[in-house]
Amino acid sequence: MSVMDSAPIRLTQMVKKGGCAAKLPAATLRQTLKDLRLNRPSQLLVGSQSLDDAAVWDLGNGTWLVQTLDFFTPIVDDPFDFGAIAAANALSDIYAMGATPITAMTILGFPAAQLDMALLKPLMDGALDRIHASGACLAGGHSIENDALILGFSVTGIVPEHRAWLNSGARPGDHLILTKPLGTGTLASALKLNQAQEHWVQGAIQSMKTLNDLGPLPDVKVNASTDITGFSLAGHAMQMAQASEVSFHIDAHRLPVLQGAMSCLEDKILNRAHHTNLAYVQDATNANETPEPLKWLLTDPQTSGGLLLSVPGAQSTKLMSLLATGFSEARVIGEVKDKESLSVRFYDGKTQV
Amino acid sequence: MSVMDSAPIRLTQMVKKGGCAAKLPAATLRQTLKDLRLNRPSQLLVGSQSLDDAAVWDLGNGTWLVQTLDFFTPIVDDPFDFGAIAAANALSDIYAMGATPITAMTILGFPAAQLDMALLKPLMDGALDRIHASGACLAGGHSIENDALILGFSVTGIVPEHRAWLNSGARPGDHLILTKPLGTGTLASALKLNQAQEHWVQGAIQSMKTLNDLGPLPDVKVNASTDITGFSLAGHAMQMAQASEVSFHIDAHRLPVLQGAMSCLEDKILNRAHHTNLAYVQDATNANETPEPLKWLLTDPQTSGGLLLSVPGAQSTKLMSLLATGFSEARVIGEVKDKESLSVRFYDGKTQV
Repeated sequence: MSVMDSAPIRLTQMVKKGGCAAKLPAATLRQTLKDLRLNRPSQLLVGSQSLDDAAVWDLGNGTWLVQTLDFFTPIVDDPFDFGAIAAANALSDIYAMGATPITAMTILGFPAAQLDMALLKPLMDGALDRIHASGACLAGGHSIENDALILGFSVTGIVPEHRAWLNSGARPGDHLILTKPLGTGTLASALKLNQAQEHWVQGAIQSMKTLNDLGPLPDVKVNASTDITGFSLAGHAMQMAQASEVSFHIDAHRLPVLQGAMSCLEDKILNRAHHTNLAYVQDATNANETPEPLKWLLTDPQTSGGLLLSVPGAQSTKLMSLLATGFSEARVIGEVKDKESLSVRFYDGKTQV
Repeated sequence: MSVMDSAPIRLTQMVKKGGCAAKLPAATLRQTLKDLRLNRPSQLLVGSQSLDDAAVWDLGNGTWLVQTLDFFTPIVDDPFDFGAIAAANALSDIYAMGATPITAMTILGFPAAQLDMALLKPLMDGALDRIHASGACLAGGHSIENDALILGFSVTGIVPEHRAWLNSGARPGDHLILTKPLGTGTLASALKLNQAQEHWVQGAIQSMKTLNDLGPLPDVKVNASTDITGFSLAGHAMQMAQASEVSFHIDAHRLPVLQGAMSCLEDKILNRAHHTNLAYVQDATNANETPEPLKWLLTDPQTSGGLLLSVPGAQSTKLMSLLATGFSEARVIGEVKDKESLSVRFYDGKTQV
């Protein structure tokens, strides 16, 4: 199943914005919704004042229920690949909590007037390939007619209380590890514009299909974790640093990058999310002062991006060796400091520490 | 908040099909998806070969997790009302299992180019009004830009194993009780066509906003339950009769009907779902032989419709008295028989028993 097959229909040509780049602007969303009066029962350990985070519900028996949902328009052309990426992306929030996925439910908007409904089969086959690989099962869902193809999943996982990872536990002295390379946002835009080389696209697809399942991590303590998605490395790192009441120093030159992504960013292949992400982080990071094209990598909206892990400095070598097989692009990208004026400071490790 | 306010924007004028009428055709969907190879772990007590049912996961400690999701385009004009209906509709599947809702996550597609994002506030206020009334909390969600406004919720509930209601437990001799009047499909179409009287619309809105929370039902045993939504009374009754391996006899003249609905059906105000629902049930019911306009009431796609309950005949009077306060339109509409050639037989109680 190749994205470059000479198929009559290219999914990415049917939508205005693909993948997590199609999110509503974060800053506007948060502003509009901050006045909502939300109930917060004591069992809801992690909720959300916004519409964009995962939730943790205490089942009361030492087990936490972890719930998240995510959906988007096609980011690649092949239906099997799109289904697989949509599933891996939705499952990612469960892994970001250290939890094990149990059920997934489909969220489907289908343009029945434009697309043959037979396309649902490869689409769902791709999704099931990833859902089953995660150990979860498809338990239901809902579908409507919609002008744009939309696919995603509501996913539930469970985790023993003592093994859960929150995004608020990063401690000064921790090392920051990113498990997947960046660049899916610009590469997806380049694909849509027919400016992406096929091996770039295939590299991005393989990365996006990869489950953020780190496997057992014996003798490694993960202090905090989040997954990098639509709000970019800068946005999600900022959220994690703020939740943990610390600051992150991230060496921009150590960041793992997908093949072709820097070339696309040099060619200014950006989408609106690059700009809204930059606006979102401008008060709490120095992303805006970073030279181009690096600035746009920091704010590149990821679809099914990697985990950002905060682990005690003494354990990062051990964790990196455990990740070597499944996540060969994983890198130590920075460290956690006491809280400073900026939540995240990007620096150029070639010239400065 | 009235649907007939002279607001500059009428949500129903922005979409092609509103509410559950915007579902993909059931028959086509099932046909397309029946070849999917689904994993079925032993904890998944109720799953779905289709994309359209609720799920039950056995937590292993005498408690079941009930999960469902539902979303659709505007069925009414007022954002608060639409939010409230979308939430009540999604919560309904939890009540149909006899469960208690705990968490809801938002599924939002928003046409940011056409609608002021300030509209999100009343939209979510309406949803929260119903979510909080159910005892659940909003725990997260996801939003994207979309040409059509789409709103819905992924909802999770819990129920002690011994108190859960399935749709497979109807027994010969049971009485069938429907808790809400029918007709939201034709009334929503009439509203969109500016052919609905205001008090008709208000009646439908009040019914759709009503939570299917029956409260405690002391000394009443519910043998089976389902909620009536997009696939109509005929479709959902057929599914329940087949799951229970029985047949239903339903007196079409006892059906509760929303004010104005029969008038709209007499005027042939139908949408595509009326026809696809009729096709869906034609081999297993006699809906197609029922005189118009009754035929179209049986196949009218409901949004946030009532529960169809199957209870031992000796207990139906007691249950009806318990429902009298909150569900004044509830009616005993038929009874359960040994399995016959038709899963559901509609008859005219005025002339025949």
